[in-house]
Amino acid sequence: MRPLALSKAYQLLEPGPVVLLTTARKGRANVMTMSWHMMVEFEPPLVACICNSANYSFAALRATGECVIAVPARKLASKVVKVGNSSGRDLDKFAAFGLTPLPAESVAPPLIAECFANLECKVSDRRLVNRYNLFILEVLKAWVDPAQKNPKTIHHHGYGRFAVDGAMITLKSKMR
Amino acid sequence: MRPLALSKAYQLLEPGPVVLLTTARKGRANVMTMSWHMMVEFEPPLVACICNSANYSFAALRATGECVIAVPARKLASKVVKVGNSSGRDLDKFAAFGLTPLPAESVAPPLIAECFANLECKVSDRRLVNRYNLFILEVLKAWVDPAQKNPKTIHHHGYGRFAVDGAMITLKSKMR
Repeated sequence: MRPLALSKAYQLLEPGPVVLLTTARKGRANVMTMSWHMMVEFEPPLVACICNSANYSFAALRATGECVIAVPARKLASKVVKVGNSSGRDLDKFAAFGLTPLPAESVAPPLIAECFANLECKVSDRRLVNRYNLFILEVLKAWVDPAQKNPKTIHHHGYGRFAVDGAMITLKSKMR
Repeated sequence: MRPLALSKAYQLLEPGPVVLLTTARKGRANVMTMSWHMMVEFEPPLVACICNSANYSFAALRATGECVIAVPARKLASKVVKVGNSSGRDLDKFAAFGLTPLPAESVAPPLIAECFANLECKVSDRRLVNRYNLFILEVLKAWVDPAQKNPKTIHHHGYGRFAVDGAMITLKSKMR
């Protein structure tokens, strides 16, 4: 993994890929699948996400205020679904599904080696947690894997149907 | 346009497409391009979005509490960029870019005829508007255009680069 400028972190999440979210509590790491996230601010990068209170990860995220958002490419799709269909309450998902935790720099939850990008985050606003399970996260450090060129991400349409990134098009734009 | 069950509305936004957001104020409709949105709840469908206060649409959304989220397919990409690169302060974007406003059922802002899906929304929570320009919207009514089969959406990677939906894959999943 090599560091990515925080000013570019939004380019990873704005396209709406399915991501993995890691947490760590009492020395034990966990990972969940998440599609409900969005950018909130460019820099410092702020991200909003919904982590349902029914998820085992919710209590860890709320208690520790730390997570890593890891972005998987197409080749990890079947692992992403397995992660989403199981609970860390019963299972070490890293071991069960062959995902490799790597130490993060500024938070306790691990990066995921197989993902092409990893964002170390801390919870920066909890005002909408009780009402909507909505966390505002600040991205503290961003990493990308230079070995994964032009990764294709996956986008969940419900019930295990995913759109895989197809062609890239570039249009003249003033939009950042 | 035919109505879509509100329980399925999340399937339109969860994949993270670029969308158009319409507003109406003092009898005048406007439209902006938006990528920073996420689902918050399945049903009634709640959506969070960031509408920057620098956008002309911001004041209309805040004042009226109403908008329509319209989802464009690939063929509208160049219009989507033009909408994003101009301001309703100076321009009637519907006329300028050949987008057709259609009356909505429950809100004043129009649907967009050329988009394959339209979601009529009202603002339901303003607590994070001042701090983050973050609006919580409730989807009141959802529409899809049955004439547009298997629409490919576009996903913004920054500076006018978009990933177009490619292959659809289906994996066995318990995830809704």
